Amino acid sequence: MSLKVYLAGPEVFLANAREQLDRKIALTRAAGLQPIAPGDLSIPPQPTQRELGHAISAIDESMMDRADAIIANLTPYHGLSADSGTCFELGYMCAQGKIAYGYTNVAADMRTRSVALYGNDVHRDASGRLRGPDGLMIEDVDMADNLMLQGGIERRGGRLIIHDAAPEARYTDTTAFEICLRLVAERGALVS
Amino acid sequence: MSLKVYLAGPEVFLANAREQLDRKIALTRAAGLQPIAPGDLSIPPQPTQRELGHAISAIDESMMDRADAIIANLTPYHGLSADSGTCFELGYMCAQGKIAYGYTNVAADMRTRSVALYGNDVHRDASGRLRGPDGLMIEDVDMADNLMLQGGIERRGGRLIIHDAAPEARYTDTTAFEICLRLVAERGALVS
Repeated sequence: MSLKVYLAGPEVFLANAREQLDRKIALTRAAGLQPIAPGDLSIPPQPTQRELGHAISAIDESMMDRADAIIANLTPYHGLSADSGTCFELGYMCAQGKIAYGYTNVAADMRTRSVALYGNDVHRDASGRLRGPDGLMIEDVDMADNLMLQGGIERRGGRLIIHDAAPEARYTDTTAFEICLRLVAERGALVS
Repeated sequence: MSLKVYLAGPEVFLANAREQLDRKIALTRAAGLQPIAPGDLSIPPQPTQRELGHAISAIDESMMDRADAIIANLTPYHGLSADSGTCFELGYMCAQGKIAYGYTNVAADMRTRSVALYGNDVHRDASGRLRGPDGLMIEDVDMADNLMLQGGIERRGGRLIIHDAAPEARYTDTTAFEICLRLVAERGALVS
């Protein structure tokens, strides 16, 4: 029985969301896995926008509840870090002890991106911690994003795959995603 | 027996992290709750930075595992959305069915902040969805951040409290945090 994999990421926001989700769904099937993708179900009309948000939240959580694994697209989105909804979903799956993998299409790690955000205006404080001019500490633990994300993945035997995609393909390049699929399929073969 | 509350947020990155965490810990005790705060434990030395990250991840997850509730500081951090580690932690606690509350010290909602990020250069597509010039969809469901965060909180009976803090007190103002404490204490009184 093949593993059911929840495909988390900011693809739902893309202008070509349906096309990109369909590509990822096809690749997942080709890897011998069962895709579970947000955006797959149409949401019934709701009286308010807030209730629409609740309905989508409920559907996405129920999709995760029946998935065996997550592959989270942790490519930075509208800021230093991964899409906030994807971070929530990764935590949600880690708490359930599900198989967790992630990837990012930006090669620069958390420290490098943070230093760039501050235009290189960073310093080490008395205890050796790297900080921006606003005093905020820069995480410097050799990880792609906040340590809860990569730590949650790696401590459960998963991996966070890093790929240096072309800027125009930042949200559509599936190189790293396909590596995750292969690794999850191998994990599935071990547990079946 | 008072509820154990995990205090999630970007306070660990502040120049005065210890002071701000101690303030939140004292307020939590004053509300009749038991604080569990990351940064409370010293981390044993590790051979590599990556392993240090794993050790912190393991400790923070174990803190969440023994907490009854989470109050997540979802104030935007280094981008459009909340700190990515805090988003992970909120998802982690929601998956365990724990009591979940959140707050933000920025009053502008997700749509307003997104439109500002694009310098008002947004449009509605053929299906009525709000999009930036890069085609990326702007979430427009009357919420403070991605719908998985606020949906996860509200669908479990929690609330996301919004407070318009002064910019210089964005990460230290505890007005909204104290409202969350009061609400969690009331929930605790109901379940005890």
